[in-house]
Amino acid sequence: MAIKEPKYVYFFGSGKADGKGKMKDLLGGKGAGLAEMTSLGVPVPAGFTITTEVCNYFYQHKRKLPPQLNGQIKKALVKIEKSMGKKFGDKNNLLLVSVRSGAKFSMPGMMDTVLNLGLNDESVEGLAQKTGNRRFALDSYRRFIQMFGNVVLEIDKEMFEEILSDKKKECEVKLDTQLTAEALEDIILKFKKVVKQKAKINFPQDPFKQLEMSRDAVFSSWNNPRAKTYRKLNKIPDDLGTAVNIQAMVFGNMGETSATGVGFTRNPSTGEKVFYGEYLINAQGEDVVAGVRTPHSINDLEKQMPKIYKQLRQITGKLEKHYRDVQDFEFTVEDNKLFMLQTRIGKRTGFAAIRIAVDMVREGLINKREALMRVDPEQINQLLHPMFDSKERFTYKVIAKGLAASPGAASGKVVFTADEAVVSSEKGEKVILVRTETCPDDIHGMHAAQGILTARGGMTSHAAVVGRGMGKTCVVGCGAITINEQQECFNVGDTKVNKDDFISIDGNTGQVMLGKIPTQPSEILQVFQGKIQEKKSKVFQYFKSLMKWANEVREIGIRANADIPLDAKVAFQFGAEGIGLCRTEHMFFASDRLPVMQEMILAETEEGRRKALDKLLLMQKKDFYGLFKEMKGHPVIIRTLDPPLHEFLPKREDLMVEVALAKRGKHKLNGKEKILARVEKLHELNPMLGHRGCRLGITYPEITEMQVRAIIEAACKLAKEGKKVLPEIMIPLVGHVNELKNQREIAVKIAEETIKKYKVKVKYMIGTMIEIPRAALTADEIAQEAEFFSFGTNDMTQMGFGFSRDDAGAFIAQYLDKKIFAEDPFQTLDQGGIGKLMQIGIDNGRRVKKNLEVGICGEHGGDPESVKFCHRAGMNYVSCSPYRVPVACLAAAQGAIESPRKSAIKNKEKKKK
Amino acid sequence: MAIKEPKYVYFFGSGKADGKGKMKDLLGGKGAGLAEMTSLGVPVPAGFTITTEVCNYFYQHKRKLPPQLNGQIKKALVKIEKSMGKKFGDKNNLLLVSVRSGAKFSMPGMMDTVLNLGLNDESVEGLAQKTGNRRFALDSYRRFIQMFGNVVLEIDKEMFEEILSDKKKECEVKLDTQLTAEALEDIILKFKKVVKQKAKINFPQDPFKQLEMSRDAVFSSWNNPRAKTYRKLNKIPDDLGTAVNIQAMVFGNMGETSATGVGFTRNPSTGEKVFYGEYLINAQGEDVVAGVRTPHSINDLEKQMPKIYKQLRQITGKLEKHYRDVQDFEFTVEDNKLFMLQTRIGKRTGFAAIRIAVDMVREGLINKREALMRVDPEQINQLLHPMFDSKERFTYKVIAKGLAASPGAASGKVVFTADEAVVSSEKGEKVILVRTETCPDDIHGMHAAQGILTARGGMTSHAAVVGRGMGKTCVVGCGAITINEQQECFNVGDTKVNKDDFISIDGNTGQVMLGKIPTQPSEILQVFQGKIQEKKSKVFQYFKSLMKWANEVREIGIRANADIPLDAKVAFQFGAEGIGLCRTEHMFFASDRLPVMQEMILAETEEGRRKALDKLLLMQKKDFYGLFKEMKGHPVIIRTLDPPLHEFLPKREDLMVEVALAKRGKHKLNGKEKILARVEKLHELNPMLGHRGCRLGITYPEITEMQVRAIIEAACKLAKEGKKVLPEIMIPLVGHVNELKNQREIAVKIAEETIKKYKVKVKYMIGTMIEIPRAALTADEIAQEAEFFSFGTNDMTQMGFGFSRDDAGAFIAQYLDKKIFAEDPFQTLDQGGIGKLMQIGIDNGRRVKKNLEVGICGEHGGDPESVKFCHRAGMNYVSCSPYRVPVACLAAAQGAIESPRKSAIKNKEKKKK
Repeated sequence: MAIKEPKYVYFFGSGKADGKGKMKDLLGGKGAGLAEMTSLGVPVPAGFTITTEVCNYFYQHKRKLPPQLNGQIKKALVKIEKSMGKKFGDKNNLLLVSVRSGAKFSMPGMMDTVLNLGLNDESVEGLAQKTGNRRFALDSYRRFIQMFGNVVLEIDKEMFEEILSDKKKECEVKLDTQLTAEALEDIILKFKKVVKQKAKINFPQDPFKQLEMSRDAVFSSWNNPRAKTYRKLNKIPDDLGTAVNIQAMVFGNMGETSATGVGFTRNPSTGEKVFYGEYLINAQGEDVVAGVRTPHSINDLEKQMPKIYKQLRQITGKLEKHYRDVQDFEFTVEDNKLFMLQTRIGKRTGFAAIRIAVDMVREGLINKREALMRVDPEQINQLLHPMFDSKERFTYKVIAKGLAASPGAASGKVVFTADEAVVSSEKGEKVILVRTETCPDDIHGMHAAQGILTARGGMTSHAAVVGRGMGKTCVVGCGAITINEQQECFNVGDTKVNKDDFISIDGNTGQVMLGKIPTQPSEILQVFQGKIQEKKSKVFQYFKSLMKWANEVREIGIRANADIPLDAKVAFQFGAEGIGLCRTEHMFFASDRLPVMQEMILAETEEGRRKALDKLLLMQKKDFYGLFKEMKGHPVIIRTLDPPLHEFLPKREDLMVEVALAKRGKHKLNGKEKILARVEKLHELNPMLGHRGCRLGITYPEITEMQVRAIIEAACKLAKEGKKVLPEIMIPLVGHVNELKNQREIAVKIAEETIKKYKVKVKYMIGTMIEIPRAALTADEIAQEAEFFSFGTNDMTQMGFGFSRDDAGAFIAQYLDKKIFAEDPFQTLDQGGIGKLMQIGIDNGRRVKKNLEVGICGEHGGDPESVKFCHRAGMNYVSCSPYRVPVACLAAAQGAIESPRKSAIKNKEKKKK
Repeated sequence: MAIKEPKYVYFFGSGKADGKGKMKDLLGGKGAGLAEMTSLGVPVPAGFTITTEVCNYFYQHKRKLPPQLNGQIKKALVKIEKSMGKKFGDKNNLLLVSVRSGAKFSMPGMMDTVLNLGLNDESVEGLAQKTGNRRFALDSYRRFIQMFGNVVLEIDKEMFEEILSDKKKECEVKLDTQLTAEALEDIILKFKKVVKQKAKINFPQDPFKQLEMSRDAVFSSWNNPRAKTYRKLNKIPDDLGTAVNIQAMVFGNMGETSATGVGFTRNPSTGEKVFYGEYLINAQGEDVVAGVRTPHSINDLEKQMPKIYKQLRQITGKLEKHYRDVQDFEFTVEDNKLFMLQTRIGKRTGFAAIRIAVDMVREGLINKREALMRVDPEQINQLLHPMFDSKERFTYKVIAKGLAASPGAASGKVVFTADEAVVSSEKGEKVILVRTETCPDDIHGMHAAQGILTARGGMTSHAAVVGRGMGKTCVVGCGAITINEQQECFNVGDTKVNKDDFISIDGNTGQVMLGKIPTQPSEILQVFQGKIQEKKSKVFQYFKSLMKWANEVREIGIRANADIPLDAKVAFQFGAEGIGLCRTEHMFFASDRLPVMQEMILAETEEGRRKALDKLLLMQKKDFYGLFKEMKGHPVIIRTLDPPLHEFLPKREDLMVEVALAKRGKHKLNGKEKILARVEKLHELNPMLGHRGCRLGITYPEITEMQVRAIIEAACKLAKEGKKVLPEIMIPLVGHVNELKNQREIAVKIAEETIKKYKVKVKYMIGTMIEIPRAALTADEIAQEAEFFSFGTNDMTQMGFGFSRDDAGAFIAQYLDKKIFAEDPFQTLDQGGIGKLMQIGIDNGRRVKKNLEVGICGEHGGDPESVKFCHRAGMNYVSCSPYRVPVACLAAAQGAIESPRKSAIKNKEKKKK
């Protein structure tokens, strides 16, 4: 019995394929796809795939190939000829082929390709005759020599480009397409001379020789430096090897019976289930894209080529069903014969993604869990923020690009101070607040502006965090702009933008444009605001369906970070199941409160501080009452005072200048010297690592007392009114169990006193942020004093990396450029480092307190990958800014689908509902 | 057979004791000690101990005592009477007793004591007669009532104190001792009235009743709030219970045949083996201490009471031998009979500790390992720094107290700027540099000054670190002083200290004194400097012996942190086996280099930077050459540039004021605007978490290139000269393996190029600081690119705790006060948190690279407890400032004795020697 020859070549064509869609290891992605399509009965130009095993053989045997290979190739070539009714090397009925790489994982552009293979001095004339277009035939030959020369013979591209551009100069034309047949003939001669001179061979005229040489070149390109680097970066093993695909070329420019086109099985912009695309008669694929001729809508094909149209609808319908998703396809009609050249999953807009997913569930094509996996959580964002009018957008000049910190689109006049923003917006003008960086003093201006643009800061800088919290469009860390506040302008390169000039910023891309681009508001928010009826908004209906499914599937709770009742209301509408973080200090920046806060800070005695705190008590109590009321009995975590006190006072350097000038008689002092003295006393070299968080509560226990009293009094008041309320008091910046113990004792004492006084039953919890690395490392000790943990991943990222979020923007950008970081750790949780620390914290904590409530309230709580991590890490909930709640919901659902929890840490949050 | 009665009472006296020295669990520390001494044949006033079991019985039975107890007590009392030849309650031959607590672990002052028990209205007269001192007898009775009233009857102290002070006013005297017998009689009457009124009983006249009540009060005091808190803080279990010691009182004031004294078996100040002490004839113990009468030297006792003296020498000699250490003893001679009241291990000065330990080894009393355990590593410090003249010291007024950041003693005129310090010191004046905080600009002034005093900063602030590195006396974080630079003065409360006023600072205690206190230089340093011959210095000889033994025993290497050849030389003399950290940036602050560094920073192009770097290259090369030469082939770790660039430029706020003033025509601009613009660009809100460390080397690779070139060129030059050299290049602030990879690639490229150029063989290593928490967490990844790790525990403490070392001083002081922290984590490594992180780092690193060289170069490398931790954690070496090398050596030896390593991680450093 003869030993069976190993199979190196897999043929596909005429409805039959040796391979299958699953054989990506052996045939690569492209080869497997072509086999799959062919087997489905889709008309694909015939071809064959040389397996990845051959590639590995090639490298293991000093670039020699298995002896049986050429025999198998020749047999497959004959099959192609049969299928296509053409002959390789036959000038009267010429079969041309393409030679393409195709590895298991897509490595776009990294390896080599040769097209139009099979042309030579003789057959080019046959092609000219057949197509009736000599210019086209010559140009194809010219391109083939050029590609072959560069890819196979490794001749410098420049050598060919130079000849081409000299010729264009000589002929006084600008485009390749303007060259005449005569010019092309001359170019071909010169190209062949280059080949002779550089490669020391005549340009090979034998098509099979051409094929062999191209095949080997593609195998070699698996190990070119570009491809190696790409595999390293993308962690693709080096020993997979690439397959080589050799496929018949087809031409849509063979006359009026030929055509070429592209299309989608559904509208990728709206998601509507309509056939969608464009085509051209007697044209090549490039012509449709290039826009030299205006293509027809694909619906016209029904009239022009009714049979082809019908066949195309059938095929694409079958492909959508087979792949169970919208298909983005390319086709060519060669002399009344339809060929599908490619089909792939179609890209789509956010709303289209949701609509298609929901529709396909209704059509029975996919199930709900699949639908949830079909939408990128970030795409939901597009629905919640204003967007630039997509037609107008590209007519405006982009002058700079920063970090896309808070999504949306905003246009307005440039202002440089928060006060100006308020004044202008009160006049009804729309403004963009442009600052080097923002600080808590700027909050009123940020509220008043349409959008915020800063020159400094990263994804979790003040502007970014507050911007996201407000749902306000925000671009930060735009290093290219230099602000000159005195001259009231900013510069970008040579461009100078003055106060009151119009600019537009895109919070989805980080782009800054000159001028005023029209925007469209979010339909979903308009429904929430009662401006559009729920039933009348398709967008809202689809959004609601998807969110409902996400809520059914996810295993962790979703809370929101909200400081004021208004934010809490938005969060609740989006489905938040509680407040994961209320930053009490944000309330202190309001104009009626800041002076009282300053009074407290400037007081030199505890008595003086207590006097000011008594005033703040009433204000805070009112805030908390409002917050609790909006949340209707869901848990509300309130964090005690966190930022360093100097944030509430004027800036030190400004005061220094003022005082220095005043002393020289230029200004009035107005007690500035006293404030400066206090500011000096509070001044810190690294405030992020300074006197803040629970360190304040420990040195000034009266502040913690006041805040706890305000929280519990507000809760008691609601309880007396018969309302449900569940406050959770959170101590920030704990690094040592004794810090928490100290604050906990104060809090319990005040809370119990207050509840006794009000004579009502109020449950409350006391817990802590886990944001200091040491806290995670000693979480077993800390858990003994805490009823809940909430990971503050902003600070944990800062301290875990040693990066100040305000300063790191500059070098993180370079790190991303140099591939030192794959992602900005302030944007997406660094699972490999900070994530480890978190897992240590969770494990340590749960070891001593099994049912410890664990959540996250850092900005990462709204980042999809980070949400999935939190799910896997076993958290009870994530908390994010109100506008990220739907994003987090979907990400949580996807996390649950991808890795359902093994241990049944029950989702308390959801049960409570 | 009768059941044996449980033994509750352990008698000691007349050379026999029921208990033993080991029975601390049952008899408490004091009771066991008294039994031990008695058994040794030492004459101790007879007494008995009621066991801790009785205490536990007391608490388990609602404060009832075992029925057999009183019987046993009465029997023991009879034994005391027999031993002492006196009778309890017999006014003619009165036995008085003391009642004292005594737990297993010493709890000084936490529980209660009653003295003079047995006195009543009748027996007080007998005592008066016997002592011939009625005033004394009455005063003893007065004290007894007061003590009993307060301790046993729980009457407020104030009640008694008020009567006493009223009486003193009435008699117009100031001291208790000035009150006459008549006055005391009146006081006793009034005291008894208070007892009647408050405790509703007559003052008990029955001595046994007095004893029972006092005993129960002592048991009760085990659970007073003070004692409970003390146990909690010191982790002493609550169920140990206290014993009660009842012991005969003896009196040294019974006439000319009586005496009392204290002494040491060796001189505690010099360590010399001489009998040392003082005594008084016819006096009480307090009299010797109080200094009312001038005591005699103990040697005079030989003449005055030759028998007693001989007996005392015998006894104390025996005690020293028994306890194998210097004894600090108290004795009383009552009517020609010697009683030892107490003996304990004697406290001693640093030099005495070393001398005694070394002498005792020579005497065969202890072995070398024991000798090493007898010296507190911190005591060595005393030998290396100037000290205040101990007699003069206490005549000067202490005006403030800061943190003792760098030891030694310094006096000088106050100056407020580094430049002034230089000017004055050039005139030959000694100055103390007083600053709010220091910065690298101040280095020249710090060098010039005798000492440094700062108002801000903690134990690892700039002033502290640099001070220790220079061996310069330094007191930091002295919050009580407020500096007014403009008026050239500082204030402490009401005291104003002007420029040029003399102050003195004590770097061992942190005290600041007004005036100029004479100092003595360190003998050891004088030997090193060749000013004293080695053979002529006893101090040096003893120091050398101890260090030799320490070096034999320790299992880890000791290196030093040194930036300049001079520091390296000192370190080498102290026995450093390498340089663990050379901070290259410190070289850039020299006056000839700073302008070049600034030129580099202000350059706007890479080319401009390279031009300045070329100049720096030559300077750095020279530095490194000197450093390598001093270290004679031992490893030298050089860290690439670490601090943020703005540290090399003038201060931002100063520039802002200057520019603002200049614009109003008050000053000249001189290009200040340009510098300000650059400073603004470099300005960071949290520079500690900003653009520094390897982040600089990554964004400006040319800096790393220059530094590596300087290092390797210097090494090659030495190698060419035939010298040994081993440079280790250290990349700072790595948090992600890719950062190290990037810098490593640059370093290897330059190093190989350079070595090739010089045509010599030079070995070098490349490694990294582990100081970012994330680095420890991902040390397995990082180890793959590192040949060594060096823990930077300053930064790791900063980031692990989220504390800025420059700012945390303020609240850490409060944390220590409030017992939130037991110790300042910048001073002693936080083993419970940061230590965990380090252990994770070491374990992760060694898991992938078994022989990874691991050390520490943070300031903790010189702290004894931290050194011991590093030993236990399995490090290869610790590195500390040059003057801490001997301290670290001894601590390392102690660590090795306390916990010898199980796994044999061999000490590479020592082998190399």
